[in-house]
Amino acid sequence: MFDVNNFLHSDALGAAIEWNGYPRFNFIGGHNDSENIPVVSLRESIDNVILKEGKTLAKYGLESGPQGYIPLRSFISSQLKNSASINCSEKEILVVSGSLQALDLVNTTFLKRGDTVIIEEENYGGTISRLKRLGVNMVGIPLEKDGMDLVFLQKVLDRLEGENKKPRYIYTIPTIQNPTGTIMSVEKRKGLIDLSKKYMIPIFEDDCYADLIYEKKRPPAIKSFDDEGYVIYCGSFSKSIAPALRVGYLVADWNVLSRILPYKTDAGSGSLEQMALAEFCKNNFSSHVNKLRSELKKKSDAICDALDKYFGSTADYQKPDGGIFIWIEMPEEVDTSRLYEIAIKQGVAINPGQEWSINPNGKRKMRLCYGNPTIDEIDEGIKLLAEICQKEFGIPNQIANL
Amino acid sequence: MFDVNNFLHSDALGAAIEWNGYPRFNFIGGHNDSENIPVVSLRESIDNVILKEGKTLAKYGLESGPQGYIPLRSFISSQLKNSASINCSEKEILVVSGSLQALDLVNTTFLKRGDTVIIEEENYGGTISRLKRLGVNMVGIPLEKDGMDLVFLQKVLDRLEGENKKPRYIYTIPTIQNPTGTIMSVEKRKGLIDLSKKYMIPIFEDDCYADLIYEKKRPPAIKSFDDEGYVIYCGSFSKSIAPALRVGYLVADWNVLSRILPYKTDAGSGSLEQMALAEFCKNNFSSHVNKLRSELKKKSDAICDALDKYFGSTADYQKPDGGIFIWIEMPEEVDTSRLYEIAIKQGVAINPGQEWSINPNGKRKMRLCYGNPTIDEIDEGIKLLAEICQKEFGIPNQIANL
Repeated sequence: MFDVNNFLHSDALGAAIEWNGYPRFNFIGGHNDSENIPVVSLRESIDNVILKEGKTLAKYGLESGPQGYIPLRSFISSQLKNSASINCSEKEILVVSGSLQALDLVNTTFLKRGDTVIIEEENYGGTISRLKRLGVNMVGIPLEKDGMDLVFLQKVLDRLEGENKKPRYIYTIPTIQNPTGTIMSVEKRKGLIDLSKKYMIPIFEDDCYADLIYEKKRPPAIKSFDDEGYVIYCGSFSKSIAPALRVGYLVADWNVLSRILPYKTDAGSGSLEQMALAEFCKNNFSSHVNKLRSELKKKSDAICDALDKYFGSTADYQKPDGGIFIWIEMPEEVDTSRLYEIAIKQGVAINPGQEWSINPNGKRKMRLCYGNPTIDEIDEGIKLLAEICQKEFGIPNQIANL
Repeated sequence: MFDVNNFLHSDALGAAIEWNGYPRFNFIGGHNDSENIPVVSLRESIDNVILKEGKTLAKYGLESGPQGYIPLRSFISSQLKNSASINCSEKEILVVSGSLQALDLVNTTFLKRGDTVIIEEENYGGTISRLKRLGVNMVGIPLEKDGMDLVFLQKVLDRLEGENKKPRYIYTIPTIQNPTGTIMSVEKRKGLIDLSKKYMIPIFEDDCYADLIYEKKRPPAIKSFDDEGYVIYCGSFSKSIAPALRVGYLVADWNVLSRILPYKTDAGSGSLEQMALAEFCKNNFSSHVNKLRSELKKKSDAICDALDKYFGSTADYQKPDGGIFIWIEMPEEVDTSRLYEIAIKQGVAINPGQEWSINPNGKRKMRLCYGNPTIDEIDEGIKLLAEICQKEFGIPNQIANL
């Protein structure tokens, strides 16, 4: 028999485990709730567009070339103008297969083993794991309620300059930061651009959740303050329309985008999904996203209520400004990686903080996603999680209302 | 201004050139002809499936997990059984974003800089360029009319064993080989499996064009003779249904697939396209592909006629057994890379042989794709190409019927 182990590298990833369905209480991943998928209007949109343009599927790239379906790029351009004050033409947009491909493309273009990057120290797990795999040094910047600590950042930049190390980029999720759910202030956005220019280091602005602000006003993107081409921006439709549609986008000046594009060697991203989204978004984006925000706000309130009810003061969190996740700090005794292992066996999936932070105190934190479970499931799942946590760590001391 | 050049590696890819539309005579790429896209039945299929299952788009992976939409995997499993004698379960199939992602995943799992792989010396340009970029040594095996020269292969295997070099895989496109358009005989398929087992080297069988055999009988896949898990198999819907739908698949024993799957970190391939294909293929795959084959055969005849008419005996080729391309050998004086450069300026795009061969004699060969142009365009384009070639290289001596 063929022995695959003889053909794997010393640094090969571990084997996948066979998939056995989703956990009963699914507090992980960017999933949405099936009731929030606009099936009827998606269907209508696809029906329209396929009759008009189905024949163009004969070509890789449709009639739009390697940067993606032009009507979708037009929508993205006008939407970014209206909602984030970004001025970009269709030529400065690259449609990608979800924002994860955006991360991979930017990393492949700019990073080599041993390079240094600057990131918010609490961060998207997929970003941290990618950078680890690439052998890149991550320098973490602490987060305040209004975003990255810029005083700390400047010190880091000075130190690195002193060590003659040029960071390859500053990565930030400014709007509904993942996992903290906070929004970077306009002042800090401007301050970040100033530092970027001063130290001549590009910013990689990941704005995947920006459409999902509940009540606050969406601030202009960092990219909107960028008059010198320092910002590479990415966004996605996974969170605003449907996760299983794998469509995201990169925005950058053409002199930058033209260096990233050659690494996109997949003969284009799925065109049916691009067509469907372009047609859908034209008439439905705003109304759909408005409705989605209000549904997610209810779930956000529900998970905060459940945390208060079952964990009491032992679960410390800041109410999310939007999005689909909440970041929770537990007392020191709690090791959320251990909690994850025990809870998953009882059907409760959580993100242990160590995968979402490069600060050792991530060990006592956890990220809970509330996009997928219903409001009843949120209550039930948090209650079960509190019981599991109490049994293992003695925290919370007592569970109210049990 | 941000200077991207300060942030690129020494081995960065060259900048992309802005896309300015397709060439008038498009003899490159796996494009199809818009008349061959089954728009009406695709539309019906999407309409059906989205009503039934649209809500499942709320989850990454739908209700199917990370290996792809289960009804599509079921179709692939039964289709491979019927057409290629492969026995595989849904668990042994991974749906990917086009077979290009299949190549990337297999390469990432198995290859490191400095490794050696064995390939057919005339080969898909995308495979050659990927392997070059990875810094992998390619050992080329000459092709005969019925596939790889196995006597040569065995000598290579012995030599490499003597040098203590273990090739990481033997890559082959056995059915409608790219670019030669030939089919590997059943005997050679069995012989290849025997060598694979004897030397304990896996085979990577790329069967992307196998659905497009014109008249011959499709032989069992090499994978069908594999009882020890040595073959990693890939296929695609790009050629059989529509290029712009980015859906392909990998087939391997679970012990191998479970090592490849962790490298697929894109949160799944486009689900709408998977749903559309599964629903479409259930009732339409065979009838559609039968019709497509006969349309492509007409185009294949047309390009052979045009080559005879305008190039006469100076263009040497074997009639393709199927597919969408023809591989042409020109007299020694012709440098097809130069021909490419001149022809593209006049609106004729060709694949120069040097990109599709690792044998130096690729310099005088070229690949022409005939899926996209109409029969009239084929005639007109080949005529123009002959004129350009004559002007530059004096070949053909005279162009008949001008």
